[in-house]
Amino acid sequence: MNRNYIIPDAWSIIEDKFEADHVKSSESLFSIGNGAMGQRANFEEDYSGPSFQGSYIGGVYYPDKTRVGWWKNGYPEYFAKVLNAPNFIGIHIKINDEVFDLHQCKEVNNFRRELNMKEGWHKRTFISKLQNDIEIKVEALRFLSLDHEELGAIQYQITPLNSDAKIEYTPYIDSGIKNQDTNWDDKFWETTDVDIDDEQAFIESHTLKTEYKVCTFMQSQFLIDDEIVKLSVQSEKEDLKASLSYSKEIKKDQTFTIHKFAGYTTSLNHQENELTSAAKNVLSKAVDLGFEELLSKQKQAWAEIWRMSDITIEGDVEAQQGIRFNIFQLNQTYSGKDARLNIGPKGFTGEKYGGSTYWDTEAYCLPFYMATKNQQVAKNLLIYRYRHLEKAIENAEKLGFKNGAALYPMVTMNGEESHNEWEITFEEIHRNGAIAYAIFNYHRYTGDYSYIPEMGMEVLIAIAKFWQQRASFSTHKNKYVILGVTGPNEYENNVNNNFYTNYVAQWCINYMLENLNILKLDYFDDYQRIIEKTKLTSEEISEMRKVAAEMYFPYSEEHQVYLQQDGFLDKEMIKVDDLDPNQRPINQYWSWDRILRSPYIKQADTLQGFYFFEDHFSREELERHFDFYEPFTVHESSLSPCVHSIQAASLDRMEQAYEFYLRTSRLDLDDYNKEVEEGCHITSMAGTWMSIVEGFGGMRIKNGNLHFSPKIPQQWNSYSFKVNFRGKVLTVNVEQNKVDFKLDGAPKMNVFVNGEKRQILDKA
Amino acid sequence: MNRNYIIPDAWSIIEDKFEADHVKSSESLFSIGNGAMGQRANFEEDYSGPSFQGSYIGGVYYPDKTRVGWWKNGYPEYFAKVLNAPNFIGIHIKINDEVFDLHQCKEVNNFRRELNMKEGWHKRTFISKLQNDIEIKVEALRFLSLDHEELGAIQYQITPLNSDAKIEYTPYIDSGIKNQDTNWDDKFWETTDVDIDDEQAFIESHTLKTEYKVCTFMQSQFLIDDEIVKLSVQSEKEDLKASLSYSKEIKKDQTFTIHKFAGYTTSLNHQENELTSAAKNVLSKAVDLGFEELLSKQKQAWAEIWRMSDITIEGDVEAQQGIRFNIFQLNQTYSGKDARLNIGPKGFTGEKYGGSTYWDTEAYCLPFYMATKNQQVAKNLLIYRYRHLEKAIENAEKLGFKNGAALYPMVTMNGEESHNEWEITFEEIHRNGAIAYAIFNYHRYTGDYSYIPEMGMEVLIAIAKFWQQRASFSTHKNKYVILGVTGPNEYENNVNNNFYTNYVAQWCINYMLENLNILKLDYFDDYQRIIEKTKLTSEEISEMRKVAAEMYFPYSEEHQVYLQQDGFLDKEMIKVDDLDPNQRPINQYWSWDRILRSPYIKQADTLQGFYFFEDHFSREELERHFDFYEPFTVHESSLSPCVHSIQAASLDRMEQAYEFYLRTSRLDLDDYNKEVEEGCHITSMAGTWMSIVEGFGGMRIKNGNLHFSPKIPQQWNSYSFKVNFRGKVLTVNVEQNKVDFKLDGAPKMNVFVNGEKRQILDKA
Repeated sequence: MNRNYIIPDAWSIIEDKFEADHVKSSESLFSIGNGAMGQRANFEEDYSGPSFQGSYIGGVYYPDKTRVGWWKNGYPEYFAKVLNAPNFIGIHIKINDEVFDLHQCKEVNNFRRELNMKEGWHKRTFISKLQNDIEIKVEALRFLSLDHEELGAIQYQITPLNSDAKIEYTPYIDSGIKNQDTNWDDKFWETTDVDIDDEQAFIESHTLKTEYKVCTFMQSQFLIDDEIVKLSVQSEKEDLKASLSYSKEIKKDQTFTIHKFAGYTTSLNHQENELTSAAKNVLSKAVDLGFEELLSKQKQAWAEIWRMSDITIEGDVEAQQGIRFNIFQLNQTYSGKDARLNIGPKGFTGEKYGGSTYWDTEAYCLPFYMATKNQQVAKNLLIYRYRHLEKAIENAEKLGFKNGAALYPMVTMNGEESHNEWEITFEEIHRNGAIAYAIFNYHRYTGDYSYIPEMGMEVLIAIAKFWQQRASFSTHKNKYVILGVTGPNEYENNVNNNFYTNYVAQWCINYMLENLNILKLDYFDDYQRIIEKTKLTSEEISEMRKVAAEMYFPYSEEHQVYLQQDGFLDKEMIKVDDLDPNQRPINQYWSWDRILRSPYIKQADTLQGFYFFEDHFSREELERHFDFYEPFTVHESSLSPCVHSIQAASLDRMEQAYEFYLRTSRLDLDDYNKEVEEGCHITSMAGTWMSIVEGFGGMRIKNGNLHFSPKIPQQWNSYSFKVNFRGKVLTVNVEQNKVDFKLDGAPKMNVFVNGEKRQILDKA
Repeated sequence: MNRNYIIPDAWSIIEDKFEADHVKSSESLFSIGNGAMGQRANFEEDYSGPSFQGSYIGGVYYPDKTRVGWWKNGYPEYFAKVLNAPNFIGIHIKINDEVFDLHQCKEVNNFRRELNMKEGWHKRTFISKLQNDIEIKVEALRFLSLDHEELGAIQYQITPLNSDAKIEYTPYIDSGIKNQDTNWDDKFWETTDVDIDDEQAFIESHTLKTEYKVCTFMQSQFLIDDEIVKLSVQSEKEDLKASLSYSKEIKKDQTFTIHKFAGYTTSLNHQENELTSAAKNVLSKAVDLGFEELLSKQKQAWAEIWRMSDITIEGDVEAQQGIRFNIFQLNQTYSGKDARLNIGPKGFTGEKYGGSTYWDTEAYCLPFYMATKNQQVAKNLLIYRYRHLEKAIENAEKLGFKNGAALYPMVTMNGEESHNEWEITFEEIHRNGAIAYAIFNYHRYTGDYSYIPEMGMEVLIAIAKFWQQRASFSTHKNKYVILGVTGPNEYENNVNNNFYTNYVAQWCINYMLENLNILKLDYFDDYQRIIEKTKLTSEEISEMRKVAAEMYFPYSEEHQVYLQQDGFLDKEMIKVDDLDPNQRPINQYWSWDRILRSPYIKQADTLQGFYFFEDHFSREELERHFDFYEPFTVHESSLSPCVHSIQAASLDRMEQAYEFYLRTSRLDLDDYNKEVEEGCHITSMAGTWMSIVEGFGGMRIKNGNLHFSPKIPQQWNSYSFKVNFRGKVLTVNVEQNKVDFKLDGAPKMNVFVNGEKRQILDKA
């Protein structure tokens, strides 16, 4: 736990100590990104202490050859991972010829680091005394521009405090970087050119195998106090690095400032042979505008994001900081402008999970983007999967399925499966359900049906084909069963008849058939085209109907609950509260087999079904299942607390809902899992947003209407959030015993509060 | 399949073609060993074609750091593997200055290779024409001495056939070898000294981490025709290699012979600083005796082995060749002289499975060694596990067990677990049962009870503790259950209540308690010592009794069979015969999840229980279970056919028994699994022996008596085998409609044939 390390603040993440032990954690927490690229909060200057360097470009990945102890048939050949990209933030600094390195200084005082979420920048200020006894004040400000997605800007300021000093700035760019996460120590990048043109530097490199071309570039300006100065430059080209050195005698109390503009142009967005000229364009715009103007535009851009996505909480600064941190990171990770990109579980804050796409996107992230962005952003997330349909069909073929059945990958970058644990890769097939559910959810929320005849129907058919083939008939049970799966609770592997999987399989088939009817009636051309393309036969349809109608669900008459899987009740049913606290989290203390045979649940599993399909069940059923399963739930997945928070709120258990809320919203800030140095849990942050909007706010969509059943934790005075619903922006303000709505930009709309209709008028 | 490649012969393995494609397979099949060391049948001279070099020293291993895709708590840090050891067989040869290499010759004719199993040597003869058109006749004979376990001897003879020729022999020793099987491309060996002393050469090297010191040595003699000649020598020392060159002009039709004596002395058997002097002793003995005398002693030593272990089959040369190949390989792999050694699944014929010990030893190999060697050999196999008891307790502790519960490793070299697939490492716990069963089996066969009070009881208690802790009480079933296991059929993972596992667990507890009573009554001092040492409490004993008494066994009333595991009948029960033959073997065509949810059985599982505990069940029960399970069995483990052969024979299904026999006995010779180039299936070879002795011969031990119920396949005229039973050697000869016994070295004994007592008199 990191509790009390981060200073509570409504709008900023702040640390006020320099502790070498905390550097790696803070590098994660203070990460910055602009949707197109991102960086861990590494220091610009040299740092010889423990650090985890990380810069990432969205969509630039490498297929790292799979390495396993024991190969199983069907394993993918490669794990596609977003690569650590060339470093453009670096500035070597010398003070009177001594390399400036915080790890080597005699003293570091007044250290303060701020990630200003409101305005989208990262700043460090401190005073340090070097070994040569020169004392300097430093202020280093950095951001990745939202307006110019290929550009980052740094303002680094040094003021000698106790004597004059010669200060040398050597900004550099460096493609000699490595991934910490590599299977075979492959070389991932090849550098083809290092070029310095006057005061601009460029490195052309490309990823091996995938051949993404990247030009890394930089140019700097200098000021003494507030005066721009022109300095003579010494340039140095190395094999993988370009450096430009600027040196100046600076008087005591004078401030010597460098503005470094740097970034990447890539073949994702430019012709391969135009990367350098594109880079020159970016630099020339940056220099023209200058640092201050760029910063000011950054603030405006973030203001625009917050205008729609902010959630305020009055009376609980930690809760407020938590939710803003979550919203900020989500916006840094994915802007939704580019349907080729997606949301990696660690975003741009680390290498774990390879920056790839998981079912997290559909199950947890989609609602956030639907409600806080325009409709196209959510649609782009759906299109991403539509574009991967062919690969998902190939993936299923590798596992023995046929006739266009699709199994979406557990982890992917380009549509191909990247994961290689059989119990997950081959068995955690419920992910197919989330992909179909996202289509349903998008239509339910936006009312935009067009996606289904245009693209979604093909996905739904391919998924339904998969379930029909994957289920098998048990003559013993006289029902269809789904054997050998891993449900959302990954603390069970290779189980039979996981309730959630069977339920979502049944639902997928029914939902597909329902839409097939709609298409046949209302979109006949699309219907014909799709039937032809997918070769869906009436025999298949009738088989699907049988599977859905005769699906088996394990059920306990004694407890009146659906069982997570066959045999669940054979376990030793000791509740989590009765476990030795020294054995928690169990995934750090128990061997895998012990976890597997225990009843402990990593994240909502049966309850995930109750979350997705809440209106299929009564409140009493939800309560019974919540009371049965939550006491066995260890919440060792970052995705667990949010669903439970929502369900606790809906069951009016506000204390419990609040507890889960804090756990999800401050998971990284307080480092609950002692692993934040590896990166932040980006996808679960969308779950935090849901905990407020769907949990406390009780927002639901029914028949195209917004419903709320607002509640408020007693710790809070009030909270408010906005949702963009079918083009109308509604602000919901909940105080103790009072709910307000404010409508923005549309004449009126109906919402339901605790089932009662209210007409909300435009504020105008 | 390799069928018809190996020439049928009663006593030899023969190939009569030189085909580069077959070289690697033949390197496996023609492997030689002497229990202490072994070699793949690599060529002595240079060979530039595809080859898999392999020399191994029993007990010399390296802990190769574990490499997995996804780490699970409890995984071992290291995988101990027997290493490829320095090469001592190599002889560079030049004919008129052209390097002699079969892959580069213009022609290779009259090629014949023989592994003479009767006499224990390997020989190649051929005529080849080099690029320089010199034609030479070659005869290369090699063996590893049974008498001098540190010594190998080579006789290499070249006769120029079409002209005089300058022939240069450069015998060498080389420690610059690598393992093909390595996790991190670690360097496994370090060489500390390369020394040449006149005509003797020595390389001192040691394994890294484990620090086994090995001195590899050589010395050669030369003959022209039959005359010993003294030649001048040119020596060369390289970093990892020592070479001695001898050159001579040889007349057409003269034969130029080298006798190379070489081998290893190791710190397993010598003081570290005496390895070279020990090597000199070996060499001096070898040179004194000379090649012919050494070979003659080799023949005697093998004759002695065959005297006890031969099985003859009349009327079926392929079956005869098969069984002798199995017996020969078992004797090459393990002589039983050294309790630190054991039997790796591939013996000295390849690197796969790391030369480590599996449950194969106890479940499959022990009966062979009990019946064909003196009692101490089998006892050494038990002592091996007794010495590992402490490590087995540590292994269990790592998985959360306590109070001295032991889980023997799945794979081991030094007692530590080496395996790292969770579904096997953590879940294939039935191996503990085989270790206890071996103690029972040893006592049943030898009548020697002393091992139990001396050592075995501690093992039995630690194993019983494990089962007591590993079983859990299901309030739902009101029985003890064992959840989350993998049975012998590794095509099922993480199943609940595997019948075999539950049955063997129950038996282990009961057998331990039974022996505890015997010790209390008859060996009270041992009893006290052991109770104190194992801290076995009366509470534990009473818990154990409960677990054994209330163990759950899944059973189908409909089929009247025990079910392999919970839920087995929910599968799609399509019989193996109805599978598409193009999808076989399924482990090469199906993804792992598909295999897991299928009903297909890799090797005897429920039936393994019926094999171990045959007399717990009626013949009708065996028949019912055999008829239920065998049709779902794909026999994709080398350990599968033998058990089924035995059971088919015992059910009087001789055609089926014969079919399984051929499959087990010629598995490698006919390369059923298309993988013999990786090495031979050594441990399953003991199963082949059982197929004859226990299967066709129907040998059983009951109440200290030998029982037979002999049967004979219609393809055979007769077969005979010997068993060493409690100091008496009994020869059993079975002809069509006739059984003969011959007793050797004891006045008389009783045996039972089909239940009827016969008194067998000594032949004397």
